Formats: sequence, structure tokens, C-alpha cells
Amino acid sequence: MNDFEFFGNIKNAENFIDRIKDKNFLFSFVISYTETSEIPGITFAGADKDSIKYTPPADAEYLYYGNCKTIDKIPMTPDGKPTPALLTKTALESSSIPHIVINAGSKIAPQLPFIQTGLSPGKNISVSPALTSSEVSQAVNYGRIVGRTLASLTDCLIIGESIPGGTTTALAVLKAFGYKAKVSSSIPNNPVILKNQIASMALEGLDSDNPYDIIAKVGDPMIPFVTGMLSSASEINPVMLAGGTQMTAVLAFASKIGFNEKNTAIGTTCYISDDKSANFKNLVSEIADIPAIAVNPRLENSSFPGLRAFSEGFAKEGVGAGGSMIASMLKTKNDSSKFLELAEKEYYRIFTSL
Amino acid sequence: MNDFEFFGNIKNAENFIDRIKDKNFLFSFVISYTETSEIPGITFAGADKDSIKYTPPADAEYLYYGNCKTIDKIPMTPDGKPTPALLTKTALESSSIPHIVINAGSKIAPQLPFIQTGLSPGKNISVSPALTSSEVSQAVNYGRIVGRTLASLTDCLIIGESIPGGTTTALAVLKAFGYKAKVSSSIPNNPVILKNQIASMALEGLDSDNPYDIIAKVGDPMIPFVTGMLSSASEINPVMLAGGTQMTAVLAFASKIGFNEKNTAIGTTCYISDDKSANFKNLVSEIADIPAIAVNPRLENSSFPGLRAFSEGFAKEGVGAGGSMIASMLKTKNDSSKFLELAEKEYYRIFTSL
Repeated sequence: MNDFEFFGNIKNAENFIDRIKDKNFLFSFVISYTETSEIPGITFAGADKDSIKYTPPADAEYLYYGNCKTIDKIPMTPDGKPTPALLTKTALESSSIPHIVINAGSKIAPQLPFIQTGLSPGKNISVSPALTSSEVSQAVNYGRIVGRTLASLTDCLIIGESIPGGTTTALAVLKAFGYKAKVSSSIPNNPVILKNQIASMALEGLDSDNPYDIIAKVGDPMIPFVTGMLSSASEINPVMLAGGTQMTAVLAFASKIGFNEKNTAIGTTCYISDDKSANFKNLVSEIADIPAIAVNPRLENSSFPGLRAFSEGFAKEGVGAGGSMIASMLKTKNDSSKFLELAEKEYYRIFTSL
Repeated sequence: MNDFEFFGNIKNAENFIDRIKDKNFLFSFVISYTETSEIPGITFAGADKDSIKYTPPADAEYLYYGNCKTIDKIPMTPDGKPTPALLTKTALESSSIPHIVINAGSKIAPQLPFIQTGLSPGKNISVSPALTSSEVSQAVNYGRIVGRTLASLTDCLIIGESIPGGTTTALAVLKAFGYKAKVSSSIPNNPVILKNQIASMALEGLDSDNPYDIIAKVGDPMIPFVTGMLSSASEINPVMLAGGTQMTAVLAFASKIGFNEKNTAIGTTCYISDDKSANFKNLVSEIADIPAIAVNPRLENSSFPGLRAFSEGFAKEGVGAGGSMIASMLKTKNDSSKFLELAEKEYYRIFTSL
């Protein structure tokens, strides 16, 4: 397992992997939205400003169909670098891991069967509270229901997410909980100053240290929903939070409302854990006593520039790419070079079928 | 297993039970709607005409929460006989069988997380085609996606349904496929003449024997959706269609578009299979070479009139009650007297908590 790096509670990382390596996985993909993503310069998740809201449902459609319904093309950056869902799809298909899409506040519904929660998109935290108190409670409660159901249907529940602008709301949440967070970005030149400005604006007027109030003021719908899922699912079976910065915000909220640390791990890509502009490894250890696993898919070895781009700091993670690659490699015993071969086939398929 | 009666392909019934008895079950509950239910006298699924459309979501809420959100009370007949969901809930809870709600054309969305399909309610077949051709295809395709996902998450997928007025659309579909069907009813004095009149009106002008055209003209959204689920799920794992008349219509459509008979059984209550006004047993044998299992929960032994009513011809079946009781008794090894004890506790809880 030279392709995996462990941090956080390292002893539990090995134990966690031993418990899940020959088991069944279920990948759940939570799509959501925050109007914070509409602030210019915040995200690359979409070819332009108007297309950002289509990225989460389009990623969901691509995972199911291999193409999108809501938009014409696979989501990509303005210069044509593909969505990290490409890595997720390759991982899930090569290992026959089933997946299910959950709409927890996406602005646009995906054109496929999905779990509906009725949650609304989050407001732009720089100008408004993100959610009402009752929306936060509803998100946690519905997350608990979904987490309980899905965890009882598998041996290990993987939770991925797609919420454009989500690293900025995650930053604000982490700051509000008192962590010195530096978060990653889908953009190589991480717009750190802008994100911190927005987080500071959001934190102005926050006069409560109640965790629910914090999420309502500066969070987004994904964070309380996934936290609810984690809190119930981790009581039943192992859960892998598949993501980077956003999942540390989930972990911070979960550590306030309760979850089972012994059944929880974070799975991500080395592009997150090695990100010098962020402090992911320290953050995880500070927040909770859980293991984290980073996979190195060695995409720098690809002959395709669009795949090499991930290793150069574009996208880095998203759509649960890291966690799903970890589960896939555990289930299939594929190493990173075999995985890269499969990802290149998928890359070729996408760009010749457009 | 004196509480079970086998018919259809009896040899395969025993084999089917052997394959699932020590396994994991998942109960899927498909809620839907046909405007055919608005014809006076067609259904008892609701205290009055205006409340019929709330019955499917209210049943779903009751299964999750033990009470309803969409309406104040548990669904019941005008004189207070409770929904068959009481039997389903008792069955699922006592055996810890997980369940998931699927909205396939319900007029009202349930207040809980559910699988959304975007399908519309069906039209009143006595005055209009039930669905457009593209709605039928969409229902089958989405059913296939959901069936594939859910079947891969369990050892045996149970499919129940709630569609008020559904026995009438089922009758029309069975007639259109050439079966001499006599269908059951939620009403003891089965309004046979009215149902046949409506079916005949619906069949007027049906000038195609294409199975998709038949469903579009005289069916409802539940039938093609559940047929799609069955067709993909039965390729992966055993599937139990939990219901009476409506499930024979599903079986009739499925036998045209293809499914795996070896992985399919119908599970229902003896109140359906013993119904003298219907011909359920013969119908199953005529349509497909699959086993059917009827459970006798011996509700006539109850001290509560509302439970005895099921044995007297009220409701008879619905919300997958029969199939979920069969799965529950297989998993827990409870016999019908133990089950009745649990159902009485639930009955008491409902009527003292109102």
C-alpha cells in the first residue's frame, strides 16, 4: 500500500483499513449549493459564473450515465481540465462499488433518481446568514435518517460531496470553531486573501458559540447534512468522509454534536494533504482523534495534460475522489499505476465522445 | 412455517425461501398516484375524497416516524380502521429490516428523505390516457436505475407500493394484456362493476398491443416504475414483489419487457389469496412461472376490532404488508401469534397516542 499515506491517528488508520478491505462499500454523493460561490474569483468549479450551479448535478449525472443531461459537457475548468468526478467514476466502476446521489440543497436537481431532502441552497455568507436555525436542524435530522439507512445497507459508507464555494464556508466554520485553518482550493493560486475576507465578513455579528448557530450563520447545507449522516452512520458501521477541507468542517461540527470516532476516517488525495497553502494534516489531528488516509494516484505520470493537472494543483479533490479511489484500490487490489491506466481510458473516452 | 401458503410455482417457493431466510432484506416502498382514485366509490384509502392523495406520503411518514407529518392522523378508513402500514411497520421494526421510500408520481411529497424520480401522477384512465409514451419509458428507465442500486445493497429486495385506485388501473392493464382478471379491493364489498366499467372505458380506443402503449393508455406510474426495478434487480438478487393485484399487473408488464423469473416471488397476505371476489392465485400462475407466498397473520384472533377488520376484508394488503411480514417472520423466526402480539402493541400505541 505504498500509494497510501496515513496521518491523524495512524494506528487506527491501519486498523480501519483492515476492517474494510474485503468488505462492501457504498458511495454516497451529497450535492449542495451556497450562493457564496457566486462571489467572483472564489471557485473554478464550472467553466464560467453561470455554469457553477450546474456543476454538482452534472457531476452526479456523469457518475451515472458517463455523460451529463443538465449541461452538454462534462464539468471542467475554463481551460478544459476535467472534473475530479472522472477519478471517482473510474474508481467506482472498476470496483463495482454502488453509489447513490443525495440532493442536500443543490440549486438544480440532477436528471436521475436521487435522494431528495427538500433542503434549500445556502445564502452568500458575506452578506447574510447561510441558513435559518430550523434549516440547520432539519439538515442534521434528515442527514441522520439517511445516514442510518445507508449505513445499514453496506459494510462501509463513503460520503463525498460537491458544493462549489464550499471551501470558503468551511473556512468560516473552522474559524468560528476556533481552529487556525488554512484551506485548500480548486484553483492553484489559492485565493487565500479573498476567502479570509469573506470568512471575516461572515463572522462579523456572530455572537453565539452554539454550534448550530455557527453553522446557521457561516456554514452551508452540506455541512450539517453530512454531519447528521456521519453521526448516525458511524454508530452502525465504518464511515469514510471522502474529501478535503470541507470534511474537516464536517468533522468540527460532528465533534460538537457527537459521532463515533472509532468508526470514522477521512479519505482524501495527496494533493490535499500535501497542499502547502493549507494545513489539512494538522487540522484533522486538532479536531478529532481519527485516522486520515491520503491516496497518491501518481497522476503526474499521465500522458494526458488534463490528468496531470490534478497533480499540479487543479481541483485536487472533489466528488469524493480520494475516498473512492482508496475504496476502489482496497477492493480491487489495483495499485496506482493500474488505476492511472483506467483513468486514462476514461479520460480518452470523454474527450473523444464530446 | 404453517403461517405460509405457497402457490404458483410451489417448488420454487420453498427454494426461494431457503435462499433468503438467513439473509439481509431491504424494503423499498414506492408511493404513487392515479387520478383514477378520484372517481367516487373506487377506494377506501383515505378518510374522504380530499384525503386520498395524502395517504401514500402519510403511510411513508408513519413507517419512518411512527406518526404522520402531512396529515394529523395515521391513514385510516372513514370508520377508523387503520392503514395496512401498521402491519408493515410492525414487521420491519421487529426484524430491523431497513427501508427506503421512493416517490414515483405521488401527488404529495412525503416529509422525509426519499428517492425522487420526478415522475408525474397518472391521469384518470376513464377520461384520458394515463401517461405519455415518454413518461412510461422514463418510469421504466428510472426504475431500472433504482432497482440496480438497491438490489446491490441487499440480499433480497422487497418492493411494496401505495397507489390509491391502483387496483382499477391494474385491472385495466391485466385486461389489456388479455388476462381474465378479477381484482381485489380495499373495500369488503368490492365495487367490481364500477371497476370493470372504468377499465372498459379506458380500454376504448386502445389500438396497440405494444406493452408500452398499453401502460401509457390504461396504467399508472407505479406499474412501469416497479417493473423497471424488478427487471434490473432480479438480474442481481432475489426480489419479492410485496402486494396483491397491483403486483400481478407489474408481473404482466415485466413478462413482456423481461425479468429473471428465478429470482422473483410475490409475497402477499392470505386476505388477497383467499379473496373469493378475485382470482389472484390463478392470475399469478397464468402470467409467470414464479412462486407466490401468502402469509396468514391470523388477525381474526386479535382483541382489537381494527386489526380483526383486515381478516374481514378491509384493506387486505397494501404498503407491502404481506411481503414485509413474510420477510420479518423469516428473519426473526416469529410465528403469527408472536407477530400478532407485536401488531397489537403498535395498534395500542397508535390509538392511545392520537
